[in-house]
Amino acid sequence: MAERILAVVLAAGESTRMKSAKSKVLHTIGNLPMISHVMLALEKTGVEKVALVVGRDAAPVVQAASSGTLAVQPFEQKERLGTGHAVLAARDEIEKGYDQLLIAYGDAPLIGGAPLIEAVEKVRAGHDVAVIGFRTPKPTGYGRLLEKDGELIAIREEKDATAEERRVEFCNSGLMAIDGRKAAALLSKITNNNVKGEYYLTDIIEVVRAEGGKAATVEASVESVAGCNNRAELAELEAIWQRNRRHELMLAGVTMIAPETVFLSHDTEIGVDTTIEPNVIFGPGVKIERNVTIHAFSHLEGAYVTEGASVGPFARLRPGANLGRNAKVGNFCEVKKADIGEGAKVNHLSYIGDATIGPRANIGAGTITCNYDGFNKYETRIGADAFIGSNSALVAPVSIGDGALTASGSVITSDVPAGAAAFGRARQYVKEGYGSEIMARNKALKESKKK
Amino acid sequence: MAERILAVVLAAGESTRMKSAKSKVLHTIGNLPMISHVMLALEKTGVEKVALVVGRDAAPVVQAASSGTLAVQPFEQKERLGTGHAVLAARDEIEKGYDQLLIAYGDAPLIGGAPLIEAVEKVRAGHDVAVIGFRTPKPTGYGRLLEKDGELIAIREEKDATAEERRVEFCNSGLMAIDGRKAAALLSKITNNNVKGEYYLTDIIEVVRAEGGKAATVEASVESVAGCNNRAELAELEAIWQRNRRHELMLAGVTMIAPETVFLSHDTEIGVDTTIEPNVIFGPGVKIERNVTIHAFSHLEGAYVTEGASVGPFARLRPGANLGRNAKVGNFCEVKKADIGEGAKVNHLSYIGDATIGPRANIGAGTITCNYDGFNKYETRIGADAFIGSNSALVAPVSIGDGALTASGSVITSDVPAGAAAFGRARQYVKEGYGSEIMARNKALKESKKK
Amino acid sequence: MAERILAVVLAAGESTRMKSAKSKVLHTIGNLPMISHVMLALEKTGVEKVALVVGRDAAPVVQAASSGTLAVQPFEQKERLGTGHAVLAARDEIEKGYDQLLIAYGDAPLIGGAPLIEAVEKVRAGHDVAVIGFRTPKPTGYGRLLEKDGELIAIREEKDATAEERRVEFCNSGLMAIDGRKAAALLSKITNNNVKGEYYLTDIIEVVRAEGGKAATVEASVESVAGCNNRAELAELEAIWQRNRRHELMLAGVTMIAPETVFLSHDTEIGVDTTIEPNVIFGPGVKIERNVTIHAFSHLEGAYVTEGASVGPFARLRPGANLGRNAKVGNFCEVKKADIGEGAKVNHLSYIGDATIGPRANIGAGTITCNYDGFNKYETRIGADAFIGSNSALVAPVSIGDGALTASGSVITSDVPAGAAAFGRARQYVKEGYGSEIMARNKALKESKKK
Repeated sequence: MAERILAVVLAAGESTRMKSAKSKVLHTIGNLPMISHVMLALEKTGVEKVALVVGRDAAPVVQAASSGTLAVQPFEQKERLGTGHAVLAARDEIEKGYDQLLIAYGDAPLIGGAPLIEAVEKVRAGHDVAVIGFRTPKPTGYGRLLEKDGELIAIREEKDATAEERRVEFCNSGLMAIDGRKAAALLSKITNNNVKGEYYLTDIIEVVRAEGGKAATVEASVESVAGCNNRAELAELEAIWQRNRRHELMLAGVTMIAPETVFLSHDTEIGVDTTIEPNVIFGPGVKIERNVTIHAFSHLEGAYVTEGASVGPFARLRPGANLGRNAKVGNFCEVKKADIGEGAKVNHLSYIGDATIGPRANIGAGTITCNYDGFNKYETRIGADAFIGSNSALVAPVSIGDGALTASGSVITSDVPAGAAAFGRARQYVKEGYGSEIMARNKALKESKKK
Repeated sequence: MAERILAVVLAAGESTRMKSAKSKVLHTIGNLPMISHVMLALEKTGVEKVALVVGRDAAPVVQAASSGTLAVQPFEQKERLGTGHAVLAARDEIEKGYDQLLIAYGDAPLIGGAPLIEAVEKVRAGHDVAVIGFRTPKPTGYGRLLEKDGELIAIREEKDATAEERRVEFCNSGLMAIDGRKAAALLSKITNNNVKGEYYLTDIIEVVRAEGGKAATVEASVESVAGCNNRAELAELEAIWQRNRRHELMLAGVTMIAPETVFLSHDTEIGVDTTIEPNVIFGPGVKIERNVTIHAFSHLEGAYVTEGASVGPFARLRPGANLGRNAKVGNFCEVKKADIGEGAKVNHLSYIGDATIGPRANIGAGTITCNYDGFNKYETRIGADAFIGSNSALVAPVSIGDGALTASGSVITSDVPAGAAAFGRARQYVKEGYGSEIMARNKALKESKKK
Repeated sequence: MAERILAVVLAAGESTRMKSAKSKVLHTIGNLPMISHVMLALEKTGVEKVALVVGRDAAPVVQAASSGTLAVQPFEQKERLGTGHAVLAARDEIEKGYDQLLIAYGDAPLIGGAPLIEAVEKVRAGHDVAVIGFRTPKPTGYGRLLEKDGELIAIREEKDATAEERRVEFCNSGLMAIDGRKAAALLSKITNNNVKGEYYLTDIIEVVRAEGGKAATVEASVESVAGCNNRAELAELEAIWQRNRRHELMLAGVTMIAPETVFLSHDTEIGVDTTIEPNVIFGPGVKIERNVTIHAFSHLEGAYVTEGASVGPFARLRPGANLGRNAKVGNFCEVKKADIGEGAKVNHLSYIGDATIGPRANIGAGTITCNYDGFNKYETRIGADAFIGSNSALVAPVSIGDGALTASGSVITSDVPAGAAAFGRARQYVKEGYGSEIMARNKALKESKKK
């Protein structure tokens, strides 16, 4: 029978230092709320259910936590009496007889699955508790993990530590796994006999050892357990996450000329031998195939880019932009909800929305698909090998046939058959000498204003 | 009676290593000349007057220094005979009987008010001089501040220091406060009995102690006293300033996903719960209210953005851009001297200049306000709920009434009444088969050129 | 008689960790293949010929290596039996009697000329070999350079090193100069008596000393000898190169507000007192004169910018863009193969390609040169002091005379004489009340869709 693991995720913090109207755990890393990152890590750990300890007005937190595959049940912590008290807000669930209890934090989103799995394995191997720790050359302020003969014998707070203990660089992250059958009993024995009158989860080690039980440690990197109390720390977590994710992509065969200027989302996918130039932003939902070039100053969200395509510089791909093989979009072009066919080019100052563009079609500079009437959106269809002259307005719904041509500067309001040419522009006329006349008049006006 | 403080600011350096046609102190940090940063710090210190020691052709330096609230009087240092000599260029002013004298440097712009105030307080408390120092683990090359029993007993130059003194990590910044009633006398006693034959301001400690006086130190951060001798160092000062300012904003409740890619000006104001995406540039004069989103690749100067508005990606807000509540400007749009009404949208490839756009108006993609005749600027007025079709040219002066509509691709040269529809485009006509014909001809031409 | 130097450049690595379809040495730094950087360093060293040791399918590597002034002869290394074996792939050339042999690596592109010259000088002065080393506080994993009495006595691999030897922080880069008359003999004596059965070039020190010869060291910076095994390391080399190049430019009098956001190419030239704002990309072939401002978010390649001109923000200069004195291009404008005359302005949402724009001409917002018919490119000529109204389409080939004017929103298909005014737009007409009618209808349609 599979082991049953309950995760208790603490997400009730009031986070006043964030100075935010919304809960801290809803602030994002890689465009995904911190709480969702924690849920993803727990998914990897084989957790069956998540008891989410929340404060008041927690509906959006519960919603964000529930966006993945894990079953989430919220428990409200009504008073703030310490981490031990917070965990016990989920007492009803804890007492349902899980094999293991995992404690995680909604504001420590970089944990990943590995240290959690290792902690679970330590408990499975016979420890009552396994605490996740981290090493740092600057341990001041952290609780120290004191070990003896391979066992964790105490978590010592800074203020209680001896000089020797303060030199210990192995510190408590707060994350831990607990034997699920003993958890409720152990947690209940934590007292609040301390200055602040709070129940500290870290006291569980003392309880375990007083009962003759055993505690273990698991080491995680200092970066993976980092938490977040203000927006400067949020930016630091984002920076760590971005650095890690970029590194993974580079090792997998993606070239980034200046990785520190490329910003990824949690779900960005990029194929090998693709080159990302400096200053590229990936919003959510982007998938790039192999051998693509994303030039500088490009901003993509919800876009799919097929092998061999070229994006940017200065491209804006919005949700539903779908670039075919060897297609090109760049130089101040915006594409939204549009298929750009194989080898087609949208390369200068164009807006293409709600459109289908056929293979090898050439969209001239300054082309606008007029897709919106203020209330409704309409479609533009452009056939294979069509040529759209520069500075055209294509008033949707409208269809341009295969191999058709529209003259530069035209307003195209009705369909153009395949192979036809369409004109929608005024005839030019010239007034000799009138340019000089107008300019002289304008100049005089300017001078009269000065007086 | 209030204490009277004179600041002497040294700004006569020739700064050949800057390789610049303009004075070093006019180079900017956060878009404000270095000398102006120094003046702002002095304002906070309660300085009454500034004696600005300048070199030749100093008019622009004096002008920049005078842009704040402090009274500035320039004194020309005609020969370069050391810092002690430079300060005495302002002897006439120094002798006017100020209570205190503050010495600052035009090329050390990050000092801020706090260390200066602390130095002033030390002198007020009975010291003849209070020198601002900084601690660094790499003191080589700096003069060391040697202390005994809480008093500054000497400033020891590297070359004169014993091995033990060289281990001192507390160094001289050059900034100091001096008892104003004794300053002229003390400064006059500095001699030039040294290899270079120069008058060193640091010798004032020796003078003070020879007279039986007392000197004190004040500690400032190494970053706050950093100076600038070439453009690489200028970039380092800029980086420190930007980092500090971003940090302040984040702690105050502004989210920056990648703070290292956001560039602020000295006067940038941003409200809480506003999000700044990566790669945003704030030129001078920008004020952003709370709860705004500034998307990536946006460039703002002289703009005001009201609560709930959305800017970018790829927005260019120029001076006089004024975005109402929930207004949207992005995707290759430029706005200059224009009010964008509440909830109005300017969202694709548009240029809006010298314009007023009413609430909820929708400006179609590729709209251009034709505001300039080569000499004069003219205004465009667009009413509430108006709909401007895509790729329109609005030839100013022109007024579009409330709820009016202009057809896509129109050139609008005269006013459109409220509720009216305006058309200014040619009728489309189609020539069947002619597209194929033209393309075949063009293709043949290309091939003939190859031969 | 001039000394004759042969360089052997190893470029046969299979570089599987790059995960790339192309050879590692073709990946670029500053937009130049790594192998070409090595060739530039060798040019400075006075090398006469380069023996390029390559693997299979080496044609593009040979081509990149041959793009400079050095004569390059490829030698295929058929088996991978170690660096000593690789060098001997060029045995035929080595035996031709060069005075010196220089060993360099195609994937260590930052070496520069100086350490190579120093190594050559050591051999000239009587050493048989001169090995280029570097110092690092983290030497673990590197071969250590063991010296005695100023001579290199051994290169000790990590695994063979004593505890004391492991503390040595002077490490082997692999680069070296060898006495050309002895090189073939020395290299032939390297054996493969080791675990892997490979011929290690480092064993040459042992050979030299067994023969009674002398070996020397030359110290280079750790950054200059860095190699590249995956794309994360490639990005690190790029970062070092960019940092060094930016620093050189700043010291030479170029202002960079945020140098870490400016990306240079190997051949970028920038004059003094030019300011580069944050986020600027220089592709290959850009030359900027003095006193230019390149505003944020600009992307330049193959462009020439004359003194006093202003580029950006949001400018895209493509090959052949040539900006005259005090010209302005910015705000979502793209310029390709075009001369922009002195003081001319292309400042808003325009595409200018295959064009010549005269002095002081003003190009209105949204102007498009329609230069392409799908097959051929055509030219647009705009005279001095011409005024192109906003949102114009100039259908090339077309010529606008000096001082001529085109009306806003015009399509200009035929030449406009000097001083003339040209119109190519439809007359506006207005239907009273019809805007409200259309909008009501569109709104009703939207609502009907919802049902």
